[in-house]
Amino acid sequence: MSLSEHLPSDTVVYDVVVVGSCMTDLVSYTPRLPKAGETIHGHKFLIGFGGKGANQCIQAARLGAKSAMVDYVGQTDEASTGVAPITVNDEGQNAIVIVAGANLLLNSEDLEQASKVIGCAKVVVCQLEIRPAVTLTALKIAHKAGVKTIFNPAPAIADLDPEFYKETDVFCCNETEAEILTGIEVCSVASAGKAGSALLEKGCRSVIITLGAEGSVLMSLDKRTPHYIPTKKVKAVDTTGAGDSFVGALAFYMAYYPCMELEEMSRRACDIASVSVQSQGTQASYPYRAQLPQELF
Amino acid sequence: MSLSEHLPSDTVVYDVVVVGSCMTDLVSYTPRLPKAGETIHGHKFLIGFGGKGANQCIQAARLGAKSAMVDYVGQTDEASTGVAPITVNDEGQNAIVIVAGANLLLNSEDLEQASKVIGCAKVVVCQLEIRPAVTLTALKIAHKAGVKTIFNPAPAIADLDPEFYKETDVFCCNETEAEILTGIEVCSVASAGKAGSALLEKGCRSVIITLGAEGSVLMSLDKRTPHYIPTKKVKAVDTTGAGDSFVGALAFYMAYYPCMELEEMSRRACDIASVSVQSQGTQASYPYRAQLPQELF
Repeated sequence: MSLSEHLPSDTVVYDVVVVGSCMTDLVSYTPRLPKAGETIHGHKFLIGFGGKGANQCIQAARLGAKSAMVDYVGQTDEASTGVAPITVNDEGQNAIVIVAGANLLLNSEDLEQASKVIGCAKVVVCQLEIRPAVTLTALKIAHKAGVKTIFNPAPAIADLDPEFYKETDVFCCNETEAEILTGIEVCSVASAGKAGSALLEKGCRSVIITLGAEGSVLMSLDKRTPHYIPTKKVKAVDTTGAGDSFVGALAFYMAYYPCMELEEMSRRACDIASVSVQSQGTQASYPYRAQLPQELF
Repeated sequence: MSLSEHLPSDTVVYDVVVVGSCMTDLVSYTPRLPKAGETIHGHKFLIGFGGKGANQCIQAARLGAKSAMVDYVGQTDEASTGVAPITVNDEGQNAIVIVAGANLLLNSEDLEQASKVIGCAKVVVCQLEIRPAVTLTALKIAHKAGVKTIFNPAPAIADLDPEFYKETDVFCCNETEAEILTGIEVCSVASAGKAGSALLEKGCRSVIITLGAEGSVLMSLDKRTPHYIPTKKVKAVDTTGAGDSFVGALAFYMAYYPCMELEEMSRRACDIASVSVQSQGTQASYPYRAQLPQELF
């Protein structure tokens, strides 16, 4: 018997529910990143939809997931729209500033109102672009209802509340975030394994550390030995949002292929993120299911 | 007999005429500047008026100059508004990207139409945020009409057309720009003097190299020995646009105090720029004449 059978008939059920941020991306394409005190010419400027929450939700939806975003869009005098000024150099590397603005106004009462949608999801996905206490509440509501949780601790904060680990099924972060959270420098598959093991110790069930072009490293309570999952080499044009593409794809697989091994999900999510880095933009670069090889589904 | 006596009675005469850029500044305040691959949280985001051309014009006007900007504002499908995403760290240092957009559409025919305004000015001021060929045309129109020219080669381009030097009365740049133009590393008063002498050799009449908090170095065909002009120490909050404040103030002094020594103009312009770094924003931080000590006038 699924949880949805207990719901009033007017409650819509979503399989992937994201509690997180919506931002306006302000993207400049430049030959290289400017140094302190420097002014450089960029060759292109784009305004786009972004925010880690919205990005991950969009990627899951493009793969076919029935997805919802808990973000309460409205007008307020209290804060400006969240913005993310992003600089992308000719190698496709980026440097991102986030001014979260109105995203910080989402509060725990808003989540109470969304608790049914959260509790009936197959997977709930959270990041750190809204207030950490609100993120933790979302993870708790999901966890208590038996919903699988993915937590992407980005942007990382050094003194993350230890409760986050206990509420998380899959803890998914990149090298920098792993380093900030564990203090272990992540510069290789071996050091990623070390940092991942340290994160497992803190209480989450599985850890995935993404390594950019190198793929990912995975470990879990059942299989504590770090497992390296390489990825295909591609020519990166713009890596902005690649991590969110990975997390969104992972949420899709967890929701619709619950019996698939996490290794296989991680491999496929990496393939999807690799497609996203081959064109410009954040959400604009995320592939739809129909554009992807059918063996991914 | 002044030039304006030859003009049809309906031509308005401006003393400081700027041919240059108007931009929208997108300013993020962050603890530090992000590195490649990094996402960091900023604490504030502001949208403001900017562009080196407009900035310099505004500073001259705030000091009391009768100023005009040759920029032909209009709507077009061919380009977006010029934008300048700027990151300012807690030390007040900045890193700036410029995507010039519509500023690159200003052409030499537009300047023909403005040639009377340019030719009747006391001082014409140019930078490099519009097409260099258009900037050079503006300097030539001014120079031919006997109007004093200030050229601020910013952002610097390594292969600057040598004609620029010949059309320039006061060549005013910062350390980075001097370095790009001469290949001489500028890290001290002495090396600034060397770079300045190299610029003089190229054919301009006077050179001012601004050294941020250290003041400026000045030399001219009449006084070839580099002269260091220190400045008062102040607590910088946001150095964005300080160079433009300096250039705008210099234009004001050249227009209204034609008998003042360039050293004295440079010292006073530095005092005015020092005021601008003590508050946030670009044009928003530029002082009005009434806010400044009366001994500056």
